Order: sequence, then structure tokens, then C-alpha cells
Amino acid sequence: MPAAASALTRLREHLHHTRLLGSISSSLYYDQNTVMPAAGAAWRGEQLALLASQLHERQSSAQYAELVQAAEAELGADAPPEQQRNLALLRLELNRQRCLDPALVGALAKAQSLGNAVWQDARARNDFSAFAPALQELIALRRQQASQLAAAEPAARSPWEILAQPFEPDVSKSRLQELFAPLKAELPVLLEQVAASHAMAPDASAAANHADLPEALQEQLCAELLDSWGYNASRCQRSRSAHPFSCTVGPADFRITTRVVPGQPLSAFLATAHEWGHSLYEQGLPRSDDHYFPWPLGEATSMGVHESQSLFWECRVARSRAFAERWHPRFCSGLGHDPWGNAAGFWRALNPLRPGLIRVEADELSYGLHIVLRFELELALLEEGMPVDDLPQQWNQRMRDLLGITPASDAEGCLQDIHWAEGLFGYFPSYALGHLISAQLSEAMEADLGGPGGLERCVARGEEAELRGWLAQRVWPLGRRVNGEQLVRQVSGAPLSAEPFLRHLRRTVAGLLSPA
Amino acid sequence: MPAAASALTRLREHLHHTRLLGSISSSLYYDQNTVMPAAGAAWRGEQLALLASQLHERQSSAQYAELVQAAEAELGADAPPEQQRNLALLRLELNRQRCLDPALVGALAKAQSLGNAVWQDARARNDFSAFAPALQELIALRRQQASQLAAAEPAARSPWEILAQPFEPDVSKSRLQELFAPLKAELPVLLEQVAASHAMAPDASAAANHADLPEALQEQLCAELLDSWGYNASRCQRSRSAHPFSCTVGPADFRITTRVVPGQPLSAFLATAHEWGHSLYEQGLPRSDDHYFPWPLGEATSMGVHESQSLFWECRVARSRAFAERWHPRFCSGLGHDPWGNAAGFWRALNPLRPGLIRVEADELSYGLHIVLRFELELALLEEGMPVDDLPQQWNQRMRDLLGITPASDAEGCLQDIHWAEGLFGYFPSYALGHLISAQLSEAMEADLGGPGGLERCVARGEEAELRGWLAQRVWPLGRRVNGEQLVRQVSGAPLSAEPFLRHLRRTVAGLLSPA
Repeated sequence: MPAAASALTRLREHLHHTRLLGSISSSLYYDQNTVMPAAGAAWRGEQLALLASQLHERQSSAQYAELVQAAEAELGADAPPEQQRNLALLRLELNRQRCLDPALVGALAKAQSLGNAVWQDARARNDFSAFAPALQELIALRRQQASQLAAAEPAARSPWEILAQPFEPDVSKSRLQELFAPLKAELPVLLEQVAASHAMAPDASAAANHADLPEALQEQLCAELLDSWGYNASRCQRSRSAHPFSCTVGPADFRITTRVVPGQPLSAFLATAHEWGHSLYEQGLPRSDDHYFPWPLGEATSMGVHESQSLFWECRVARSRAFAERWHPRFCSGLGHDPWGNAAGFWRALNPLRPGLIRVEADELSYGLHIVLRFELELALLEEGMPVDDLPQQWNQRMRDLLGITPASDAEGCLQDIHWAEGLFGYFPSYALGHLISAQLSEAMEADLGGPGGLERCVARGEEAELRGWLAQRVWPLGRRVNGEQLVRQVSGAPLSAEPFLRHLRRTVAGLLSPA
Repeated sequence: MPAAASALTRLREHLHHTRLLGSISSSLYYDQNTVMPAAGAAWRGEQLALLASQLHERQSSAQYAELVQAAEAELGADAPPEQQRNLALLRLELNRQRCLDPALVGALAKAQSLGNAVWQDARARNDFSAFAPALQELIALRRQQASQLAAAEPAARSPWEILAQPFEPDVSKSRLQELFAPLKAELPVLLEQVAASHAMAPDASAAANHADLPEALQEQLCAELLDSWGYNASRCQRSRSAHPFSCTVGPADFRITTRVVPGQPLSAFLATAHEWGHSLYEQGLPRSDDHYFPWPLGEATSMGVHESQSLFWECRVARSRAFAERWHPRFCSGLGHDPWGNAAGFWRALNPLRPGLIRVEADELSYGLHIVLRFELELALLEEGMPVDDLPQQWNQRMRDLLGITPASDAEGCLQDIHWAEGLFGYFPSYALGHLISAQLSEAMEADLGGPGGLERCVARGEEAELRGWLAQRVWPLGRRVNGEQLVRQVSGAPLSAEPFLRHLRRTVAGLLSPA
């Protein structure tokens, strides 16, 4: 028996065990956000801290380091490139983990769980001051983490960039600024076009969009949507939570959650499309081959790519005109009448194009500006010394500056997102990257589906399975073989840019503003 | 700092960590039985096996053994008796764990999880042969376990007795036979009285008992019941599962599940009362004192006592005449009519007194005989070499002999219970002990509540909180300070016997058979 095979086999077993522990955390997280009673939070925090410290131990122990080193040493020059990349990714992650103080890892897990619980309560009571100490603590801990991680970075990176690496490998602030600049230049122009048009002809869909859709009907339409998009109850589970999310609990166990938002009748439906896009990507990741699960190559490559998959199903499919035409009758028949007037009205309701306060409810035009706001506030909080107590005022000020609107409460302002409550900084830009990637992949997809308009023609025929098939063949199986930008270049043949997304927005705005 | 304090402190921390791991398993178990998709079973089995092996390691490692030994050595002669008993219980459990082969522990956890999944499917398809190999494997593994555990037993015990110890500490087959003998003598007589009465006057409640109660109404009545019995949503969660259970996920996180059974309109309601009784006991266990949580004294003392608490709320309260009087109007108003004719009819429907096939739906008269059947079959399977393949035939034969009825399918025969599917042998007698203990504690309670009938008088006034208060003061805080039989003697002043239970049954039968 060659020694090399043995080291790789032992490493594989180690990773399998690590995956088990990680997925136990996922299961507890899912439970915490769907059914756990509030008083369970403190103990749940201890459970998650215990698992986090076990995970950190497994990913940073001397024994694991020796295992990686042995595998590296045994890796022949003719080893498959997949295996080489697996080991390179493991090495980078190992170096990062070994920089971290285990006490910090445990403290972070506890603070994250506590932050979640405190935030749920503070948001419900619209009381930022109740949340501020938890946020302060999370920022301090994450800055400590960035400073410990700096030693492992192959290049010089700022604290924010270091924290963003797990979500967007190889991301830099300057590349983000380059990609976001065209958005900052053009989005306000498009928003003004829309505002001017609304001023001339008040948006008829506004009232309809606030039509009441009974909860049971929303549930039923979500279930029908999932059924038509390949939902398989033997592998999937859908629940309710305060904030929609998607969560993989095992290699054949996929969960998504949604919420019914009073006064936002299409919210649960679109959130279901969105979370299902995440889940499809997870379900489509390569798992069967030797070089994939439980190796790094079997994982999602970046949050930007992950988000591109959810946004594809939400924005490119579920908000498309063709989709509105097909689903309008179902909505009306469930409701017993047609509050939208016709399919075009329903389509407009799916695309409100109206600067809103809530990111997850935002239209595609203002979404990018929501991200810019959060990106800048994260830099201010993490790198520029902005006091946590200034957050509500700063949030509201920037909201006015960027989008021209002001939150009436912190609950619909700086308390709206779960991310900071769990210490997630460096995550938001991935959402904007998701829009860009989704648009660029959609153009590549259309080139294979008969050119521009090919996507909508598929949807018009109810053949979303063809879109799913394309993604299942071209995108999902790549795993982490390439990073996000490399994936876009490989699939579309061009470097990532904002242009496809802006083309899509110009076309959408023109369509929505034209007479029905 | 005295060395003794330090050893006990370290031991306490060790136990706290062990509790965390155990409660993670509980959370995964709850998830598995309420929301996990079927395809997740294999991975869930691996997760649970991993946790089981970690738990076994913590409870049997040389390091832990040294910790216990150090604490024992440091325990002064004037140490509180609670601490002495904690260490005695830890020592016994340690000796048991150290007898076990870790490979067997892992194999059992996997077989239990697989057994659960296979059973769910086999029961749904009424296919015993699909379940038989899993059961065979579980029996073989549990026999192996008993043979390994024998070395730690303070007294000579049979394999079945050894497996029963975790549920009923200090139980013996001969003591069970002694306690069950009066039941075997008198239950058939009472059953015959009932049958003779039914023959003369066909039971009018039979049709009403099969009245349809809409699922939403059942849900609402269950919620109202829990609210009136102290349910607190910030500490509790209620879900659906194939088999009702109660489950403690953390020191302030209590879960119960129920199921709506078609054609059994009162099943979910009574199961809710039952599981809530379990949960109340868990919620009332001592947690705050130094000698309790996470020490053994903070645990439930036996499954028999646990079951006495669930049966108290199900049989002594929810099936009582006074309770039926109070709740009859609520059922009728939810339903819009009265299928029971009057409160007495409703009371009869709550107490069908009709030998049934399903243990969890069985009346109090035949319940004991259900247990005898399982007790004898377990002895046959584990100690007398009965082949697994004979189980359906043996089950049906004994069902006819004991209760005079025959299951139409294995799904309502030997596949009805979850216990064997998870390798639980030695558990069923605790249910019967629960009936005896509940009856004996009820008599002690009534002595404090104004004598015979005091319990019903409380219920008639809607003052179940008083009953809860009595249990919270006299029973729940005992934890494991005493074993089950000692608890009964301490609370009631007399050794456990079947007589209070039989007195209760005679009275109930007389009441039900008398003209309304």
C-alpha cells in the first residue's frame, strides 16, 4: 500500500468528520431560527460555542497540520490538479485557523448566538440601544480576529478585506470599488427616470401591491412554485423564520425558510424563489467524485456566486414578464379576484421599482445602493472608528443621501438585517456581486438558448427545468475548482463587469415605464 | 484553595460539557422526528453516532475516571449526602461505561438511527419483513451490550434486567412480577364486567368517539389545554411527529410533539396532556442548587416516575369526570354541535374502556395487559431465543390471548411502537409502573386536598394549578435523590403497590357503567 494513498485517505476521513460537526451546527442553527423557544438561547449559545471550539480544534490542531503536511509531501507531481487545489485550499485555511486563539473562537460563537437572540428582541421592540452592546462586542471580537488572521494572509489586506475572505475569496476593496463605480454612476439616473415617470403617472400597481394575500394562499403558492422548480420533499424541508435563509444540514438534507410579511403580499413568494436558488446551488454541488465532498472542491466557491444563483431565480425568472404572464391566473384564482387588473399589472407589482427601506424587499435598482450603504458603514465601524451609538443616525443620514428616504424606526433601519447581529461583516458586497454575476451568466445562458430573450421564451413555455439543467451542467459542478471571478470568466468567456447587469436594468426599466 | 473543591469543580465542568453534548443529540433527535426530510437519515445517523461516541468517550475515558476518583478521594466524611449520592451514581455509571466497547457504542447509535428510519417506512407500508433485519441487528447489539455491562453490575442480573437499569434503576423481574400479579388477576375480571355491560347496552359513545374533529380545532383545543396548564411559549415548543414525545433540549428549552390521528378525535388532545405531564416533570427538576444540574441528582429518577407524571395529567386529570364537565362546552362550541349528547357522554368518550389494538390509545384497563405482552415478548426475544421472524405471529397470538382481539395488520400490531425500532428494550414495564405510581401519588395528593375526591374538586374549579403546585413541591424537586420506589414511599408513606391503581379502576368502571 503506497504511503501517499494512506495519508490522503486519513485526511479524507478527517474532513468527513469535520463536515459532520459543521452540519450539526447547521442543524442547531436551523432549529434556533425556526422552532427554538426564546429562553433556549443561552444554552444554544453554549452548544454552538462547544461545536465551534471542536471545529476550530479539528481545523488547527498539530495533528491535523501534520496530516496536511504528510498529504502535501506525498502528493506526486502528476497528482490530479483537483487534488492539488484541494490541498492548496486546505493549507490556506489551516494557516488561517492556526493564527486564531481558541478562546476567541469560542467567545465569538457565543457572542454570535447571543447577538442573534438580543437582535430578535431589540428589533421586535425597535430598541437599538438594547442591541448596541452586543454589536459593540461583536465588532471588537471580529477586529481581534482580523488582526490574528493577518499573519496567514498571502497578501497585505485591511481588516475588512480579511473578514470578507471567507465569503469572497481574493476580494479587495479596490476591485469592489471598480465594479461598483458604474452602478453608483448609473443607478441614480435610472432611479430618477422612474421617479419622474411615477410623478407624471402615479403607479397603479402601488395599491395592488398592498393587496392582501391570505397567509394560506401565500403558503400554497410558495409550495406550487417549489414543486414546479424541482422541490423534492424527501430531500428538502421548508419552514418559517424571522429572516428567510437556506441551510444545508447534510449531503441529502436541504432546508429553506420563508416568512409572510404583512402588507407585502409577494414577499414570501419572491423570498421562496430566492432561497430556493441558494438551495439548488447547494444541491447541485459536486459530491460523488473522489476530489469533491468532503474536500474543499465540493463546496460553494463564494457568496457572490451563491447569491447569483438565488438572484437568478428571484430576479431573472420570478420577476420576468413571461413568468408574470404564467402565474397571474394562479394568483387571481387563489384570490377569487384580480387586484392587478391584468398580467402586466401583476408584472409591475413583482417589480415595484420604488426605493424601499428594507434591503430584502428592495427593487433591483436600489438594491445596489443598499449594499453601498452597508459596505461603507462596515468600513466606518471596523476601520474608521465610528462609534456604534452613531449607527442609527448614520444609517438614516446615508439612506436619505443615497435613496432619498428615511426609516421611521430602527427596526426598518439599521436593525433590519440579521448579519451584524451574528457578527457577519464583509458579507454584504457579495449580494451586489451576485446581481452582476447573475446578469453575466444569464447572457451566457441566453447565448445557448437561442440568443437574447431565450430565457423568457423558456419561462413562457413553463420550461424552467431547461434553465436548471443549464446551471446544473455549467455552473454548479464547478464547486471550488475556480473562484468567483474565474467562474464567470470560464462560463461567460469574459471578465466580470457591471455592464450585463446595467443592460438588464435599462431594458427592465424601459419595459416597465412603457405603457401597458 | 482546598484540593477537594478543585476536583469537584473540575468534575462539575466536565458534567456541564457532557450535558451540552447530550442536549445536542436531543436537538438533532427532535429535528429528525419533526422536520428532517427522509433522505437526511443516513447523515443524521452519522451525526448521532459521532455525538454518541464523543459522549461515551467523555463518560468512560481514563481522564474522567481519574476525575471521579479524585473527587471521591477528596470527599470528606461530612460532605452533604447529596454530594455523596451524586458521586455514587457517577461511579456506577462510570463503571458501566467503561465496560463498553466504543465500537459497539457507535454501532448502536447508527443502528438506532437507521432502525428509526426503516421502521417509519416499514410501518407506513405495513411491511414487517423490511424492518426485521434492522430489529435483528438491534437485538444482537443490545445483547452484546448487556453482556459487556454485566461486569459492572453490583448484583447478578439477567440481560433484560441489565438493559432495563437505565430506565428503572434497581428493577428486577421478580419485583415486576410481584407488582403485576394483582393486575393480571383483576384486570381481566374488570374487562369482562365492561364487556358484559356493553353486550347488554351497546356503548352509545362508540359512534361519538369516531366523530370527526377538524384538525384545526384539535390544534386549537390542544393549545388551549396547554395554556390552561402553564404552557409558556418562551420556554416551550410544540410540533408534529409520527409518534408523540417530549424532549428536553436545554435547561430552559422544552419540546413536546403530538399527532392528529384520523378517526381518533380525542387522541391528539389526550396525547398532549400526556406529553405535557412529562415536560412538566422535566421543567420542575431541580436545577439551581449546587448539588443538582448538571449533577445526576438534577435528573429524572426513573422512567416509571416520569410516566407517572404524564399519566397523572392524562388519566387522572384529562379523563376525569370533572374535567369532562368543564371541557365539554369548549369541544361542542368549536364543533358547532354536540356529538356526545351531554357532558357524561363526552366523559365516556374520553374513557372508551374497550380493548384496543394500539397501546398509546389503550384504555386504562387494557393498558397493563399491553405492557405484559411486550414485557414477555422482550424476554422471549432477548433471553429465550425467539426468532425475530416469529414476532408478528407471536404478537397477534398473545394479543388474542390477553385482550381477545387481533390486529388486522402489523402496522397496528408489532410495528406500532417506536421503542424497538430504536433498540429500546426494558422500557415498557415503566409505563405500567407509571400507572401504579400515579395512582399512589394521587391518593397522597388527595389526602392533602381534603381527602377522596379532592383532585376532582380542584379540577371542577379549574384549579389544576393547585395540583401542579403540589407536584412541584413534593415530587419534582426530588430529582435522583431517591429511586422510584423510594420516592413513592417517601411521598405516600407506604411501599409501592398495585392496590391504589386497582381502587381507581374499580371506581372508574363503576362510574362509567352506571346509568348516565
